Amino acid sequence: MTTTSPDSKIPKPGTSDPKIIDGRAIAKTLTARVAEGVRAFHAETGATPGLAVVLVGNDPASEVYVRNKALQTHRAGMRSFMHMLPETTGEAELLDLVARLNADPAIHGILVQLPLPKQIDPVRVTNAIAPEKDVDGLGEVNAGRLALGIPGIVPCTPLGCLLLLRSVHADMRGKHAVVIGASNLVGKPMGQLLLAENCTVSIAHIDTRDPKGLAREGDILVVATGRRALVQGDWIRPGATIIDVGITRVPAADGKTRLAGDVDFDAAYPIAGHITPVPGGVGPMTIACLLHNTLHAAQLGAGLDRSGLLDDLRSESAS
Amino acid sequence: MTTTSPDSKIPKPGTSDPKIIDGRAIAKTLTARVAEGVRAFHAETGATPGLAVVLVGNDPASEVYVRNKALQTHRAGMRSFMHMLPETTGEAELLDLVARLNADPAIHGILVQLPLPKQIDPVRVTNAIAPEKDVDGLGEVNAGRLALGIPGIVPCTPLGCLLLLRSVHADMRGKHAVVIGASNLVGKPMGQLLLAENCTVSIAHIDTRDPKGLAREGDILVVATGRRALVQGDWIRPGATIIDVGITRVPAADGKTRLAGDVDFDAAYPIAGHITPVPGGVGPMTIACLLHNTLHAAQLGAGLDRSGLLDDLRSESAS
Ligand SMILES: NC(=O)c1ccc[n+]([C@@H]2O[C@H](COP(=O)([O-])OP(=O)(O)OC[C@H]3O[C@@H](n4cnc5c(N)ncnc54)[C@H](OP(=O)(O)O)[C@@H]3O)[C@@H](O)[C@H]2O)c1
Ligand SMILES: NC(=O)c1ccc[n+]([C@@H]2O[C@H](COP(=O)([O-])OP(=O)(O)OC[C@H]3O[C@@H](n4cnc5c(N)ncnc54)[C@H](OP(=O)(O)O)[C@@H]3O)[C@@H](O)[C@H]2O)c1
Repeated sequence: MTTTSPDSKIPKPGTSDPKIIDGRAIAKTLTARVAEGVRAFHAETGATPGLAVVLVGNDPASEVYVRNKALQTHRAGMRSFMHMLPETTGEAELLDLVARLNADPAIHGILVQLPLPKQIDPVRVTNAIAPEKDVDGLGEVNAGRLALGIPGIVPCTPLGCLLLLRSVHADMRGKHAVVIGASNLVGKPMGQLLLAENCTVSIAHIDTRDPKGLAREGDILVVATGRRALVQGDWIRPGATIIDVGITRVPAADGKTRLAGDVDFDAAYPIAGHITPVPGGVGPMTIACLLHNTLHAAQLGAGLDRSGLLDDLRSESAS
Repeated sequence: MTTTSPDSKIPKPGTSDPKIIDGRAIAKTLTARVAEGVRAFHAETGATPGLAVVLVGNDPASEVYVRNKALQTHRAGMRSFMHMLPETTGEAELLDLVARLNADPAIHGILVQLPLPKQIDPVRVTNAIAPEKDVDGLGEVNAGRLALGIPGIVPCTPLGCLLLLRSVHADMRGKHAVVIGASNLVGKPMGQLLLAENCTVSIAHIDTRDPKGLAREGDILVVATGRRALVQGDWIRPGATIIDVGITRVPAADGKTRLAGDVDFDAAYPIAGHITPVPGGVGPMTIACLLHNTLHAAQLGAGLDRSGLLDDLRSESAS
C-alpha cells in the first residue's frame, strides 16, 4: 500500500539510525504487549476483548483503514466485528446500532469510522458511544477526562505520538512543546497530553502569524496539518525532537504514489535531535494504540487495572 | 470585604481610564442582562431559574463565597437554595443530595463549593452533577465540550476573563495569547477558550523554564498562579492586554487586609495596552458568569436557545 521515498539519501526505519524514531518497531513492540495482555485477560476472565468497527458509505480510504484495523485486531487475538452500512444510512439507524453495541457484553470497544455521510451528525454519533467503549477517545466524556487529567481513553494518534516521544525522552518536564495543528483528532488532545507531561505547550494553527518563529522555540515539535513539507529546516530548533503526523499521498517517480509528511524530512534530519519518518513513524502507532485502547477498555470493564502497559515503553535514558 | 490599594498612584476602576478594564462595570452590565433574561424566561415559561449551592464544612472563605453567590442569585430574580452540611458529611450522603438536586425540576443549576473535606472525592462529586445543571462547568462532560468546541457550560472565571478580553478586542484571531497557570479551574479552560477565539495559545506553569520570555511574546497575557506580583513590568509586551486572575490577601497599612493580584499593577500599567485591576477586574465577573450560566442552563432545559446574551458585550472597535 505504501512505498518509501526512493529519492531520500537519509537512513530509513530498520537501519537503526539512533536519530530516527522507528514507529514500526515501537508499534510492533506495543502490539506484542497487547497480544500478551489479551492472553492474560482471557486466562483471568475467560473472556476475549472485542472491537466493533462501523463504516458507513464507500469512501475508499476509509475502507482500507477499517479493513486494516479489523485485521490487526484479529491478529492480536481479539474478536473483531465489522458493520458496513450503505451510504444512505440514516442517523437514527446508526444511533440504534451504536445503542445495541453499547449493550452488547461481547463488545469492549466501538469505533465509528469518520467521516460520516452528510445526513449524519458525527458529534451526536461519537457522543452516543458509551464512554467506556469509546476506544477512539473522541467523545465528550473522554475529551473531558483528558482535559481534567483524570483517567480515560486517549485518542489513538496523539497517544501514539506520546509513546514515540517517551521512547526518546525519559522526562519531558519543562520542555517547550510546540504543536502545529489544532484539530480535535490530533492537535488539541496532543496539547493536553504534553501539558500532562509538564511541558510548556504552545499550539499553532492556520491563523498563527509566525509559525516558523514559534516552531523554532520547540524542544519538541509535533506537526499535524496535512500540509506537505510545511516545516522546513529553518523551522527547527537544533537538537529538537520532531514528530510528523501529516500524511499526504503524492505521485512517485515509479508511477505509484507515496506518502509524504508535513515536515521536509531531508531538510529537517540534519538539524533535529530525533525525528519520525513518513511512512514508518506515527502511522503504525495509531493502530497499535487502538488495539491497546480496546484491551484497556476490556480490562477496565472487568474491574482490572492494567494501565502500566504503556509505562514499559518509556525510555530509560535521561534526556 | 475588600479595600483598594491605598498606595497606588494609578487610576482605579470607576475613574474611566480607557487602559483599565473595569470588571465591576462589565459585571454590572452582565448581571443586569441576566436579570432581564430571568424576567423574560418567567414571562415565557412561567418558571423561575433556580440555583442550588452546596457547602460542606466551615471554611470561612468558602462561607463568604457561598453567601455572596446566594445573595446575588436572589438579587438577579432567581431562586437560590443553600445546603450547608457539616464537615463530617460522608461522600455517599453528598452524592445522594446531588442526585436529589439533579432530579428536582425547580433546580436549574447546582454548585458544590470546593474544596471539600478530605473524606470526599471532589472529582466524583463534580462529575455526579448532571451536565446540564453543572453551572460551574467543571465536570468532565462540560470540560469535554469545551475541548471539542461543542456547546456546553463554560467555567465561570475563564468565561469572565474572556468577556473582559472581548470588551477590548473585537477579534482575537491570530493574537498570541499566553496563559500563566494551568489549573483545571482557570488556566486550562482559559487556554481552550482562547484557542476557540483563534488565538495562538501558549500555556506556562511552575515547570516553565523562562516564563518571563514567554510572557513577553503575549499580545494577550492571562495570569492565574496565586503568586503575588509574579509578573513584573519587564514580563510585558508593550501594548499587551493583561488579565490578572490572581487573588492574594495581604496586610494593608491601615491594619486591614487588601487583595493583591499576580501582576505588579503599578509596574505593568505604563507598559500594557489594557489591564485589569485587583480588586475590580476578574473577581466581579466570576459571580456574574455564574448567574449567566444558571439562566443559560434554565433556558436550555426549557428548550430555549438564548446563547446570544454574551455577544452584546463584545467590543465594537477593531483591535
Ligand atoms: N498518522 C496517522 O495515523 C494520522 C492520524 C490522523 C491524522 N493524520 C494526518 O495528520 C494530518 C492532520 O490531521 P487532522 O485530522 O488533525 O487534520 P485537520 O482536521 O485538517 O486539522 C489540521 C490542522 O492544521 C492547521 N493548519 C492547516 N494548515 C496550516 C498551516 N499552513 N499552518 C499552520 N497550521 C495549519 C489547521 O488550522 P485551522 O484549524 O485553524 O484550519 C488545523 O488545526 C493530516 O495529514 C492527516 O492525514 C495522520
Ligand atoms: N478572581 C476570581 O474570581 C478567581 C477565581 C478562581 C481563582 N482565582 C485566583 O487565581 C489564582 C489561581 O487560581 P487556581 O485555582 O488556578 O490556582 P492553582 O490550582 O493553585 O493553580 C495555579 C497554577 O499556577 C501555576 N504556578 C504556580 N506558581 C507559578 C509560578 N511561579 N510560575 C508559573 N506558574 C506557576 C501552577 O503550576 P503547577 O500546576 O505546575 O503547579 C498552577 O498551574 C489564585 O490566586 C486564585 O485565588 C481567582
